[in-house]
Amino acid sequence: MDVYQSKIHHWLEQNREKSLSFLQSLINEPSTQGNEEAVQTLIVNKLKEIGLEVDLWELDGENLKKNPYFFSPRDQFKGSPNVVGVLKGEGSGRSILLNGHVDVVPAGDLTQWDKDPYQGEVVDGKMYGRGTTDMKGGNLSLYLAIEVIKELGIKLKGDVILHSVVEEESGGAGTLDAILKGYNADAAIIPEPTNMKIFPKQQGSKWFRLYVKGRAAHGGMRYHGVSAIEKSLIVLNHITDLERLRNERIDDPLYKNVPIPVPINIGRIEGGDWPSSVADLVKLEGRIGIAPNENIDDVQKELEQWMQELANIDPWFEEHPVEIEWYGARWLPGSIDENHTLMGILSKQYQTVLGKEPVIEASPWGTDGGLLTQVGDTPSVVFGPGLSHMAHFPNEYIEVDKIFEVAEIIALTVIEWCGVKEV
Amino acid sequence: MDVYQSKIHHWLEQNREKSLSFLQSLINEPSTQGNEEAVQTLIVNKLKEIGLEVDLWELDGENLKKNPYFFSPRDQFKGSPNVVGVLKGEGSGRSILLNGHVDVVPAGDLTQWDKDPYQGEVVDGKMYGRGTTDMKGGNLSLYLAIEVIKELGIKLKGDVILHSVVEEESGGAGTLDAILKGYNADAAIIPEPTNMKIFPKQQGSKWFRLYVKGRAAHGGMRYHGVSAIEKSLIVLNHITDLERLRNERIDDPLYKNVPIPVPINIGRIEGGDWPSSVADLVKLEGRIGIAPNENIDDVQKELEQWMQELANIDPWFEEHPVEIEWYGARWLPGSIDENHTLMGILSKQYQTVLGKEPVIEASPWGTDGGLLTQVGDTPSVVFGPGLSHMAHFPNEYIEVDKIFEVAEIIALTVIEWCGVKEV
Repeated sequence: MDVYQSKIHHWLEQNREKSLSFLQSLINEPSTQGNEEAVQTLIVNKLKEIGLEVDLWELDGENLKKNPYFFSPRDQFKGSPNVVGVLKGEGSGRSILLNGHVDVVPAGDLTQWDKDPYQGEVVDGKMYGRGTTDMKGGNLSLYLAIEVIKELGIKLKGDVILHSVVEEESGGAGTLDAILKGYNADAAIIPEPTNMKIFPKQQGSKWFRLYVKGRAAHGGMRYHGVSAIEKSLIVLNHITDLERLRNERIDDPLYKNVPIPVPINIGRIEGGDWPSSVADLVKLEGRIGIAPNENIDDVQKELEQWMQELANIDPWFEEHPVEIEWYGARWLPGSIDENHTLMGILSKQYQTVLGKEPVIEASPWGTDGGLLTQVGDTPSVVFGPGLSHMAHFPNEYIEVDKIFEVAEIIALTVIEWCGVKEV
Repeated sequence: MDVYQSKIHHWLEQNREKSLSFLQSLINEPSTQGNEEAVQTLIVNKLKEIGLEVDLWELDGENLKKNPYFFSPRDQFKGSPNVVGVLKGEGSGRSILLNGHVDVVPAGDLTQWDKDPYQGEVVDGKMYGRGTTDMKGGNLSLYLAIEVIKELGIKLKGDVILHSVVEEESGGAGTLDAILKGYNADAAIIPEPTNMKIFPKQQGSKWFRLYVKGRAAHGGMRYHGVSAIEKSLIVLNHITDLERLRNERIDDPLYKNVPIPVPINIGRIEGGDWPSSVADLVKLEGRIGIAPNENIDDVQKELEQWMQELANIDPWFEEHPVEIEWYGARWLPGSIDENHTLMGILSKQYQTVLGKEPVIEASPWGTDGGLLTQVGDTPSVVFGPGLSHMAHFPNEYIEVDKIFEVAEIIALTVIEWCGVKEV
């Protein structure tokens, strides 16, 4: 295997600048939900250039809607195509699925960015921009891993299937549609930003919306009304209590270094319609983390019952219960056996390239690995170059060296997993 | 005066049904900000029918913008005309200004309404609908008071000037423009919903917007971010403390029965842009009540300094201070001498019609009376038939009997104030 490593390493060094330019062109496209077409076109060209068989198609909302695993805030996907590239093997080897999403979350408050979020500027070995870490940088590792195998003339026995999917950030409809089209494999690697840690277990999550009721009144006589904003404070504190309770239960050693293994995040709040009226309705939108060993239905029931408990804290909620709507996105939790062959190969090649043991942990967020495991019957491991804590962050960046390290580790892992046809 | 009273009372009885139908036609028009033209057209026709000289014009945003008393979220008033009707007196009498606004606040959450907010249904002596109490019902009292004087052939010495204005709900640009056009008088009555109380003092108020900062992160690692929603809880509690402090200072006996004389109301909240991201910005919009004896600049300074105090509660606010924007609407506080002649006449005629002493209090909200007093040099008293606590409320209604009682009291007050030319 040593012979492959040095050649791969050398080729990656040679192609470093060209590859980073390509990554910048991906960052230049603000591929937020509904705007992924331009970036997918770049990727189609790249995959064709590498020599893959490429399939590009728009997600079939009508068909997806009928699937129990479909979760998305939308069911129309015009302008949001999926791309799959396939490198057919020579036969009788294990197949591998390399999955990465191209959708990014919005840049948020631009005043908190020191850099243009869509320029991809490189300073001190870091490339800045929305999607650098989550996860266009990791995707580049995949393209490079496949390209170097092709360029070095290595003939794999098993197939390599590359998913370049949309909709990961809102529930995985892109990966689901790719699975439904038959693009599965014997195992999968997803280079989400794990900061070079290996995540055999992935947290699931589900979005929800809470409706907190008040009673309107003129603000000058606010004592005649009931402020849905004030009542929301009670609801928010109550949710924090549930989060604490749920996390006290977690005893999986893979979570021992994670401050809050399964967070409940309220990401959006909106309520009231006039500064001088008492707000009669507040909407809260959030995501609840689901531990790898939890069942989504049980978690939903727990949150619903917890909201009913509000009536014991404030009698207002007896007559005006908080309503829960389970909307939009859902990520299934996922896991691969810690002793799975792919885990062993990946850990070994990590050590080959970096000369140290990898850190094995459980992921603090959902990935499409849950769908791959549960629907696509493809056990999945998450391992990538980005920094977890920079995902969805202003000034998101990726350390560019890590992209190439991961490319090298994944190339070697794919070679060992798929097997090489001797010539 | 007795001879007038019985004739007026009789005429009002005779015209009751017709008048309520007209009020319903006013309620049928959802005259929220920017949508007042249809209702003003109905009023123009009504005032012409009564026999007034009528002036209808669209507010001059360009001119208003230059005026230091102008406050509005907009400076374009297309579709938002003012109407003034004038009943010229015979000469040598005191003039009276009767001021009412036609704009209404939005209906809010429709599920909290048992009736259609724009139908004007009458059940058990109550007419329901947005604007019945605030303040189309009170406006009807004005039309009736003028009409009955005309119909009974009473020749007033002083002029009667009726303001049918827009923009009261967002800062008084309608009344300001009418003042700037010279439509002032020796004193004014504003039939805002006082529940038949007489308000010689009027609370002012001012809108503000607060920007609460956070730091974004992926919701699954929310411990790497700082939630602007969580920080907003601290800000909201801090504002409640300021409200308590400010109200402990109020010792005006006119406020002795008011639970919170000068409330601070946060009427809108909005923040975050993704359920599974940590919110990096929350906007709060509210109104701060200004006591009749307070100066607006001092109050602004007090709120600004109070927000700086947040740094002592949570070090986050040291580096990320809450920003205040003073935007949109402002109502000047106003007052008329409690011994002003108009106060005496109004109280006396109240007793004539209802056989009991009126309740004299300070208003819990701003009215255009502040502008009339401070800019138009027209001392103003607020007295009207609606229920204060139904203003801006779902299921807003007005007790229809009160409309006619107020019409009778105001007709008699106008006759005594303006004087009658003996024939």
